[in-house]
Amino acid sequence: MSKTMKGVTLFADWDPKPDFKLGPKDIEGKQTYLGSKVWRNPRIEIVEHPVPEPGPDEVLIEVKACGICGSDVHMAQPDEEGYILYPGLTGFPCILGHEFSGVVVKAGERAFDKRTNKPFKGGEIVCAEEMMWCGQCKPCADGYPNHCERLNEVGFNVNGAFAKYIVMPAKLVWNLESLKNRYSGDDIFLAGSLVEPTSVAYNAVIERGGGIRPGDNVVVCGGGPVGIAACAILKRSGAARVILSEPQPERAELGKKMGADYVINPLKEDFVQRVLELTDGMGANLYLEATGLPTVVYPQIEKVIWEGRTINSTVVVVARADAKMPVTGEVLQVRRARIIGAQGHSGHGTFYRVIECMADGMDMTPMITKKITLDEVPQNIINLRTDRKECKITCVM
Amino acid sequence: MSKTMKGVTLFADWDPKPDFKLGPKDIEGKQTYLGSKVWRNPRIEIVEHPVPEPGPDEVLIEVKACGICGSDVHMAQPDEEGYILYPGLTGFPCILGHEFSGVVVKAGERAFDKRTNKPFKGGEIVCAEEMMWCGQCKPCADGYPNHCERLNEVGFNVNGAFAKYIVMPAKLVWNLESLKNRYSGDDIFLAGSLVEPTSVAYNAVIERGGGIRPGDNVVVCGGGPVGIAACAILKRSGAARVILSEPQPERAELGKKMGADYVINPLKEDFVQRVLELTDGMGANLYLEATGLPTVVYPQIEKVIWEGRTINSTVVVVARADAKMPVTGEVLQVRRARIIGAQGHSGHGTFYRVIECMADGMDMTPMITKKITLDEVPQNIINLRTDRKECKITCVM
Amino acid sequence: MSKTMKGVTLFADWDPKPDFKLGPKDIEGKQTYLGSKVWRNPRIEIVEHPVPEPGPDEVLIEVKACGICGSDVHMAQPDEEGYILYPGLTGFPCILGHEFSGVVVKAGERAFDKRTNKPFKGGEIVCAEEMMWCGQCKPCADGYPNHCERLNEVGFNVNGAFAKYIVMPAKLVWNLESLKNRYSGDDIFLAGSLVEPTSVAYNAVIERGGGIRPGDNVVVCGGGPVGIAACAILKRSGAARVILSEPQPERAELGKKMGADYVINPLKEDFVQRVLELTDGMGANLYLEATGLPTVVYPQIEKVIWEGRTINSTVVVVARADAKMPVTGEVLQVRRARIIGAQGHSGHGTFYRVIECMADGMDMTPMITKKITLDEVPQNIINLRTDRKECKITCVM
Amino acid sequence: MSKTMKGVTLFADWDPKPDFKLGPKDIEGKQTYLGSKVWRNPRIEIVEHPVPEPGPDEVLIEVKACGICGSDVHMAQPDEEGYILYPGLTGFPCILGHEFSGVVVKAGERAFDKRTNKPFKGGEIVCAEEMMWCGQCKPCADGYPNHCERLNEVGFNVNGAFAKYIVMPAKLVWNLESLKNRYSGDDIFLAGSLVEPTSVAYNAVIERGGGIRPGDNVVVCGGGPVGIAACAILKRSGAARVILSEPQPERAELGKKMGADYVINPLKEDFVQRVLELTDGMGANLYLEATGLPTVVYPQIEKVIWEGRTINSTVVVVARADAKMPVTGEVLQVRRARIIGAQGHSGHGTFYRVIECMADGMDMTPMITKKITLDEVPQNIINLRTDRKECKITCVM
Repeated sequence: MSKTMKGVTLFADWDPKPDFKLGPKDIEGKQTYLGSKVWRNPRIEIVEHPVPEPGPDEVLIEVKACGICGSDVHMAQPDEEGYILYPGLTGFPCILGHEFSGVVVKAGERAFDKRTNKPFKGGEIVCAEEMMWCGQCKPCADGYPNHCERLNEVGFNVNGAFAKYIVMPAKLVWNLESLKNRYSGDDIFLAGSLVEPTSVAYNAVIERGGGIRPGDNVVVCGGGPVGIAACAILKRSGAARVILSEPQPERAELGKKMGADYVINPLKEDFVQRVLELTDGMGANLYLEATGLPTVVYPQIEKVIWEGRTINSTVVVVARADAKMPVTGEVLQVRRARIIGAQGHSGHGTFYRVIECMADGMDMTPMITKKITLDEVPQNIINLRTDRKECKITCVM
Repeated sequence: MSKTMKGVTLFADWDPKPDFKLGPKDIEGKQTYLGSKVWRNPRIEIVEHPVPEPGPDEVLIEVKACGICGSDVHMAQPDEEGYILYPGLTGFPCILGHEFSGVVVKAGERAFDKRTNKPFKGGEIVCAEEMMWCGQCKPCADGYPNHCERLNEVGFNVNGAFAKYIVMPAKLVWNLESLKNRYSGDDIFLAGSLVEPTSVAYNAVIERGGGIRPGDNVVVCGGGPVGIAACAILKRSGAARVILSEPQPERAELGKKMGADYVINPLKEDFVQRVLELTDGMGANLYLEATGLPTVVYPQIEKVIWEGRTINSTVVVVARADAKMPVTGEVLQVRRARIIGAQGHSGHGTFYRVIECMADGMDMTPMITKKITLDEVPQNIINLRTDRKECKITCVM
Repeated sequence: MSKTMKGVTLFADWDPKPDFKLGPKDIEGKQTYLGSKVWRNPRIEIVEHPVPEPGPDEVLIEVKACGICGSDVHMAQPDEEGYILYPGLTGFPCILGHEFSGVVVKAGERAFDKRTNKPFKGGEIVCAEEMMWCGQCKPCADGYPNHCERLNEVGFNVNGAFAKYIVMPAKLVWNLESLKNRYSGDDIFLAGSLVEPTSVAYNAVIERGGGIRPGDNVVVCGGGPVGIAACAILKRSGAARVILSEPQPERAELGKKMGADYVINPLKEDFVQRVLELTDGMGANLYLEATGLPTVVYPQIEKVIWEGRTINSTVVVVARADAKMPVTGEVLQVRRARIIGAQGHSGHGTFYRVIECMADGMDMTPMITKKITLDEVPQNIINLRTDRKECKITCVM
Repeated sequence: MSKTMKGVTLFADWDPKPDFKLGPKDIEGKQTYLGSKVWRNPRIEIVEHPVPEPGPDEVLIEVKACGICGSDVHMAQPDEEGYILYPGLTGFPCILGHEFSGVVVKAGERAFDKRTNKPFKGGEIVCAEEMMWCGQCKPCADGYPNHCERLNEVGFNVNGAFAKYIVMPAKLVWNLESLKNRYSGDDIFLAGSLVEPTSVAYNAVIERGGGIRPGDNVVVCGGGPVGIAACAILKRSGAARVILSEPQPERAELGKKMGADYVINPLKEDFVQRVLELTDGMGANLYLEATGLPTVVYPQIEKVIWEGRTINSTVVVVARADAKMPVTGEVLQVRRARIIGAQGHSGHGTFYRVIECMADGMDMTPMITKKITLDEVPQNIINLRTDRKECKITCVM
């Protein structure tokens, strides 16, 4: 085994804006919770790194597939002043990449496989959570690792998976053996690399949104990877009608393939009228806001809730946005509705259940619309600044 | 329209056992909550009845299909002393039949269609709840009509649907228009007649059992109509593995057709080991006891829970039985498990959602293994005392 | 028994604004769902009415106490053009009054007492729900009577309780016998007249808000009757800290008496900082918006949620308002929070539990800050247009 | 600081019964999950131990108070063959004691205080969980630390708190600063030592049982420490009536002091009739089985559920027992009831909320009926084999 490896690495300059103050978890020159206030002139380079060594609770994984996420794009994308777009936790230089799968190469002595409750032996096909929850703070101890107060993130402030190897704490690693009946060759790694983004959608609609009852209607606003994955999960949950609202034709098409019964083009059709027509005047039981455009989308969702006859609707907000949602309290009152925020993918049995769904035939691999090599990753991250046709671009190693 | 109609009518003699005392809702010579303590020498006869007239809140329905339920069999089946087997609410003579669908012929002025919130006009294809909840007692007012304190039951103490016509309160009637896209000809009535028994299963596993998350495993013990319907509902809810335990080959086969991924023959295989094998050592998240043999079945369920690694399992008891379940509290403690009782099909949006599932493709009609005419109903009710091969025998008119 | 009785009756002129269209439940000249668009020149007069006669499902109640509600004030209050302020369901002329208690005088043969499941005999001390849910529409059948699609309202479009007698459907009536151990003389009627407004608060924080766990913190914004009642209920639920935000000194004082541990004057203190100080930097688990000023209050609630460390907060909106709440989705995401709408007081066991709380010592009678006679009701309804010092003015008969 | 300290230490002989097999977590001669099958001739001795040194994630605590638990008694109590009574995880020799509080003396660099999310500085008054959940297995990662698959237990297989010092992982430690307003002198330590047993009760009735709504009735069977603590918690949750069933007069008296409204002596009174009388024929919403005698207690609970009118009752089983509960499924069905198992005290925000309840006035210290010194611990552990009058005997240092 070679002692070094190539890694797709993001470099940027520590150049805080005047109003920036070092926060409690920030480290001068190295790490901040407010990326877009600090990092300037991002550059993606493929450079050599030492192959990492697993500690006693850790495993070394040979990466086999890793998808590009929107956050990878925003970390590497400068605004007009040269500051990166991504606003959150970042520590550079850092190998990017967190939607990955691979094979366990080496395991520490206390590195247990949660699937078997036995130590990893090596050879296991696995994927991993991106959120390195500490397991010790109050939210973690209470059972809410997505809200860890001392979080690290793979591919953001800890070296990620656009590299030959990655070291991960065993507690974040999930065994993919049950996919072997469904997939052969590289496909198991492609499927495995989609467990993380699918889990974001699962956490949003099932854990946070409370899921649905078979026979319910759902509306998904936005056909990005999370919205598309939500269509698949909700159809699988027994939704009578999954309605996707998405103007981009390629995404609309993919949504239909993945579980949407109907697609609305909100730029060409009257969203409110279409949802009411398709649901026999009832509206939906669950709405997922996955566009990041709440000022546009929320008023329309609200209007369907008001005009439809369904009570007890849930609106789940999974996309980040700066703008405020204009919420009419009376609609929530009269229709017995609620709005819920969702983030993350960890905890609550989510990864395990997503893998079991895949093992039972929930095939997410059509979401991968392009496969690339490690060397092609930097250019594709840059291309995705403007390209809205691809759903998921995945590096296969 | 003729003024009389034929009805499959159950007659029996009011001959209370010595220990019987007239209860608060019992009516001397006519009605009791303790059928098997009172009624003797049951006879099923087809006799003429006046066509009923709907009141202001009611609709007159022309019956098109009506299935035979196990309770029909037990009401008409004498024990060694001649008393009927059915232990519950009964008032004879009574037209039998409660799993029905038909067409609205005439509607009272305040008979509203819940689907549209407008008055019934006539011509609507409908089915109905069997439980005539009062809507006024404490459980009804609190939202639990399955536990109504002043219940009447269609086909038990109120004339049922093995007849040309039936009158029903509009509040119990559910519109089947949405099935028109799926079914043509008589099939919509066959499907409609299955909404009631499917709703019993839906209430058990979804409303009472809390449903599952996509990717969970379930075990259904007993392949009668409720168990079979539960397989369909749970697969539709996203179960990774639906395991049916049923020794009768015809029922096992039907279970597989309707949603079971695996069938265990508990008389020939080791139930505990098989469930653990099929679930990779995990066991199931939801168990449905639908056999009526809890002394046999519960210890095995408990053993899977104990030996499997799944925590938070739910055991739903839907079948009636006199015998006690021997429950080891420690298993519930160590595995964070629970046992829940389920009865009924009303309330909680259940009928509506079952119809929506059917409209979206959950086809229950394979459960109907035999179609008969009204004249054949009495003999078929008698045959079902011993025949365990048929799933649902349905009268088509 | 006299055949007529005096009733505090609201008259107004049917004079629809140009944009008004008769809705499906509206009745030309008599009833509308959009009061403020139709009724002009309201006058409250005390006039003679025939004593009503109970139907078979109904009881005749001799009214003993009846409180004035804010909606009584708004129905009788003209805007600059003379239209009434109250925007909802109204049918005039109508006897006002819906927060009442009294004694059953006469009962129909099918008028059952939900407390005993036996017919009313006469002599029972009772109160009643104001919402005349139909029990037959889809929301009612599903268990959500607060969202009845064919609602009538006592004292709005059906004669109310500012009169010697009132007829009520038995299903809306609740027995107050259990209060006899706590109250003597008229006090039981005063307490009984507060069950309805207390149930509005209970429905908001317990049924809709999901309640709290003992040791949680809560913030109630607005010290009107619903806010004050919520303080009492939440303290009783085991809140470690109940914080009331209310600028009016009389209401603040009453809040403290009824359960608030702390009161913030948001006009003089920094709400966000005070809540964080009082909760050791955690913020609250439950927030109740009971001011009707969401543009002022919601941003402050949101800021506490953001800056505090509590996750899983719930914001319950119970006050009606036209203005939009500006909601930052990211706060709901990062803090795992949710917003819920609440209306009504019916169903879910709420009335019964409120009465049981009162029987166990939850004394709401300090909320009654003034007692009046029937003749004084009209003037007091008018005075309350401007008087914010009184909490509840109650007519004792 | 001295380098050694006295510790109340349990010694026993490793002498496995013939049918014992070493399990996956067992260690020959040192540790087993099946204590009563292995350990013989228990002796409690006070011996010298080195003062432990905290690791980077740990704190060293000077113990100030530590209560004796029933499990301490059973670990040290031989049966007729000399085997210990305690059936669970044990590793001897081991310092006993796990219900403790104390002061932080020294903290590792990564030992964070969950209350502040800052490192421990020393001087903090604290208590701790007894269950050393790993935070890495599937149940822990899913948010269920009470069901950790690689559990260690303080005072069972890891040195406990009947000693001058103890080392604990910071993630198990809870700050008691908020109790300072309520308690002075040693009382804060006494209160703090009761957080652990109170949390067992809180986990049972609130987390597992789902809590109650204000106005509900509850029945607690068994007035041991967990039953008594449950009375306090449930009264604080707003129970209208807390009914304790307990024959021992001292415990009955203490129960009343701590929150029970009524006490039933089940040896002298008819439990079923008394509960129905006290609840106006309704029965209870929550039942806690805290006796360990399910064959006696469950049939009585079941009879109240059957004869009472309350639906949706929950029975929580918190006491361990070998005997089976004879459960009539029909009672669960007709009364919409459920049975739930509860164990542990970790996770779900339980410790934090119990401390907040105490800070708000839930005073548990009357449960401590006797205070002793460290030297008196061995004899008192032995005395408790037969003494049922004391509730909690606590060592104060």
